[in-house]
Amino acid sequence: MVKAASRQSVPVRRADAERNIAAILAAGTRLLSSDPAASVAAIAKAAGVGRVTLYGHFPSREALVEAVLNHVIGAADPALEDPALETAPAPEAMAALLRSSWEILDQHRRLFVAADRTMATERIRRHHDRPLRRVERLIERGRRGGDFRTDLPLPWLVTTFFSLVHSAAQEREEGRLAPEDVERVLITSMLSLLTDGVSAFS
Amino acid sequence: MVKAASRQSVPVRRADAERNIAAILAAGTRLLSSDPAASVAAIAKAAGVGRVTLYGHFPSREALVEAVLNHVIGAADPALEDPALETAPAPEAMAALLRSSWEILDQHRRLFVAADRTMATERIRRHHDRPLRRVERLIERGRRGGDFRTDLPLPWLVTTFFSLVHSAAQEREEGRLAPEDVERVLITSMLSLLTDGVSAFS
Repeated sequence: MVKAASRQSVPVRRADAERNIAAILAAGTRLLSSDPAASVAAIAKAAGVGRVTLYGHFPSREALVEAVLNHVIGAADPALEDPALETAPAPEAMAALLRSSWEILDQHRRLFVAADRTMATERIRRHHDRPLRRVERLIERGRRGGDFRTDLPLPWLVTTFFSLVHSAAQEREEGRLAPEDVERVLITSMLSLLTDGVSAFS
Repeated sequence: MVKAASRQSVPVRRADAERNIAAILAAGTRLLSSDPAASVAAIAKAAGVGRVTLYGHFPSREALVEAVLNHVIGAADPALEDPALETAPAPEAMAALLRSSWEILDQHRRLFVAADRTMATERIRRHHDRPLRRVERLIERGRRGGDFRTDLPLPWLVTTFFSLVHSAAQEREEGRLAPEDVERVLITSMLSLLTDGVSAFS
């Protein structure tokens, strides 16, 4: 009997752990997206778990911030799927992708600030591999179709997308860029980077 | 006599402290510019001071990295002074400023990586206030003279300079950008951002 009970308790404990992790990530998303300095204690409290339980899953605040960032990027990814990305003229598709990317980032701007304080930029970028592959495919298509420049390396153009969108988040956070200007500024900047030189020859 | 000795010892101790700080900053610059993970112990050893002395001046590794960053930016600033920045055609002056800025950053690329790991981007940027004012003045002059666009906010254009140059450092460090390509990529990108839309009307 004892054996049977102990066999059963493993999946039960696993289900508990999964529920706790889900609650911690949800609370972390909510709290860090409104205050980048939100403490581990506040996140544990909002998740309804003890600090010991939280630290059992995420051994440091850095680890927790990174897990929340990864969770948010994963959850947001389907919202970036758009069949028009494959079919619309590349500059239009780029404008649409910048709009949807900014909408998500702006919502979680403070979580990005929290991540930027504790993580290297390269590490933050690695969590964006999947959305950045979408950017890369679109830029490639625009180059093949003659809409986008080919005189700069493809990886550099992908980097400028990441870099400009995240700079816009910093600028918003610091009050150097008005909310109503962000989309236009991002689209104009990115299309200048992608098409200058192309228009000169067309 | 004790009184006189103690009066004398204050400047002596101050001179000692200043010598130690200078040695720590010099060693920190050397070590962090070749290994962004250089330890406090290694920097203290290279500076010829004890760890206790080092921690007396810089209470944490973060504080030391920040002080070294500030020291390097201050020391490099005169190299960015160039009378041609005020007189050469704005696009040429911008290309020259990108070249000299990159030369300095490339030399200390790993120190920047060390800072990026421990400091928020906004904090790193604040240490660049002085060099960025030079960028701002040049962009302003280019806008007044009709060489640079006026349809994007001036602070945003200054931010893109900071952001592209530091992205190039990351790309170099990660091996995604070839050393011989950096200058051309930076100049082409920044001038596209600054002049696209201007050329269309000229």
